[in-house]
Amino acid sequence: MKDKKNTLARLGEFGLIRRLTKGLKADASVAVGPGDDCAAIRVSAKEYLLLTADMLVEGVDFFPGERSELVGRKALAVSLSDIAACGGTPRYALVSLGIPAACPYDRVAGIFNGMKRLARRYNVNIVGGDISRCVKLVLNISVAGFVAKRRLVTRSGAKPGDVIFVSGSLGGSIKGRHLRFTPRVREAAYLTAHFKVTSMIDVSDGLWQDLGHLMSASGTGAVIYADRLPLSGAASGIEDALSSGEDFELLFTMPLVEASRLLRVKNGFAFRQIGFVLPGDSGMKLVGKDLRPLKVKRPGYRHF
Amino acid sequence: MKDKKNTLARLGEFGLIRRLTKGLKADASVAVGPGDDCAAIRVSAKEYLLLTADMLVEGVDFFPGERSELVGRKALAVSLSDIAACGGTPRYALVSLGIPAACPYDRVAGIFNGMKRLARRYNVNIVGGDISRCVKLVLNISVAGFVAKRRLVTRSGAKPGDVIFVSGSLGGSIKGRHLRFTPRVREAAYLTAHFKVTSMIDVSDGLWQDLGHLMSASGTGAVIYADRLPLSGAASGIEDALSSGEDFELLFTMPLVEASRLLRVKNGFAFRQIGFVLPGDSGMKLVGKDLRPLKVKRPGYRHF
Repeated sequence: MKDKKNTLARLGEFGLIRRLTKGLKADASVAVGPGDDCAAIRVSAKEYLLLTADMLVEGVDFFPGERSELVGRKALAVSLSDIAACGGTPRYALVSLGIPAACPYDRVAGIFNGMKRLARRYNVNIVGGDISRCVKLVLNISVAGFVAKRRLVTRSGAKPGDVIFVSGSLGGSIKGRHLRFTPRVREAAYLTAHFKVTSMIDVSDGLWQDLGHLMSASGTGAVIYADRLPLSGAASGIEDALSSGEDFELLFTMPLVEASRLLRVKNGFAFRQIGFVLPGDSGMKLVGKDLRPLKVKRPGYRHF
Repeated sequence: MKDKKNTLARLGEFGLIRRLTKGLKADASVAVGPGDDCAAIRVSAKEYLLLTADMLVEGVDFFPGERSELVGRKALAVSLSDIAACGGTPRYALVSLGIPAACPYDRVAGIFNGMKRLARRYNVNIVGGDISRCVKLVLNISVAGFVAKRRLVTRSGAKPGDVIFVSGSLGGSIKGRHLRFTPRVREAAYLTAHFKVTSMIDVSDGLWQDLGHLMSASGTGAVIYADRLPLSGAASGIEDALSSGEDFELLFTMPLVEASRLLRVKNGFAFRQIGFVLPGDSGMKLVGKDLRPLKVKRPGYRHF
């Protein structure tokens, strides 16, 4: 009986979001609403205000044995990564903490210190928040930032023929990098300042799944070369690089001419071309060197 | 042994916030940082961006038996109340949901519908958020809004001799009003448009405790006339009106001349004068009709 109920386990995170936000209206000041890495709000002639929020729960997104400073660092970093994915600069953070009554002060202080340190490095001001009692530690960070209008990148601008890139390397994040990853704020600033980036997302639920979000928002398909995926030292293989979550790398697209230029200029960043955008009816394909299709077994991280 | 530990139960919410935010730095763009109802950010010549966040936890701030629509309504309303307390207009909301895997879809949809309905009424756009798995339902709402610079009200501007007012009525909120209260956005807009409001806060933790926040931020004391407190129909008495949480009324101060004008003009709102601001060394006093001091037994709601 139980699994017949309309539970979240059955709907899944994205099914749930689709249903909840269906028919949600926004006024003309909202340039980008729910469903992208950030919301973008028209606030001045030249800039958008970017808004994003992330909730991390103990036992799901971090664990009791993990170092407090790193847990706090991560909680903020995931939101900075969202701002980066839209091409923006993070500026202000609100920190909400749900804390068990018996939680030692040192745990909370350590988490907050980890946030403070990362905030300082990225010139982000922690300007407020809330504290509540909860059976588990829950951290919710909301970040506000800005992006020049001509530099805003969403998920929906990819065009067939664009080249698909990813920053850094993929896979095995669970072995430690998920707590220490660098939010790609500088990479995004570099890209949007010098190139025409047509679409971008940060890889939080596994490359294949997030590529799916990018392509479905753009109404396009994609072909990915398996042998071009940049595997991290901790990755167990291609499947891991495709499906394991929390890489927090940038996945983005740009026209061929731009892409060629990106590959030729020295910039100190690691951007790897991994495939091409295809027309929408082509679907998403993973191919080997000989272009023969390969199977993707695990599509990505599921929250429910 | 246990109660000797440095737990949150021992520090209390406000002790914890004081310790966490000690030494927190902000750049020149931050006009108001942590410790007020909202943060205020310099974004243009005429306006501040206001940012606020509130976390509500099932079993603490709302309960399984309570109607989903009302729970969602409340979650958004508490943040609208914070924006109101700074004199601002709420505009954008981010909704983070921590949801047990077995939670029925209807519960989540009902909560979200309650938010949507209230958002529509106040012209607030729900522009994004996050969903995570959690053992208890956790709702975190962040709201961004704007306030004209000359209309920003903080907690710290009360001056000795100012009159203390409260909107609406107090006490007994737990009997139902805590789920159905009206965030005083319109009242705040009226007040800041027509009067010089020197300080303001929303009453979330009980009048006496929140008056303490207002007076300590302003470096002032206060005298409150017990017989002038506007008791709600659900209030059990003066103690209840002083100490029970979640009234979400506006508590504010203005100079005598302004106060007199407020009492003389017809505006359709319920503002009650309840006392005076005193010099800082006078402390906070509750008095009877004959000005004899009365004792306040319970100072207000404690989160830990």
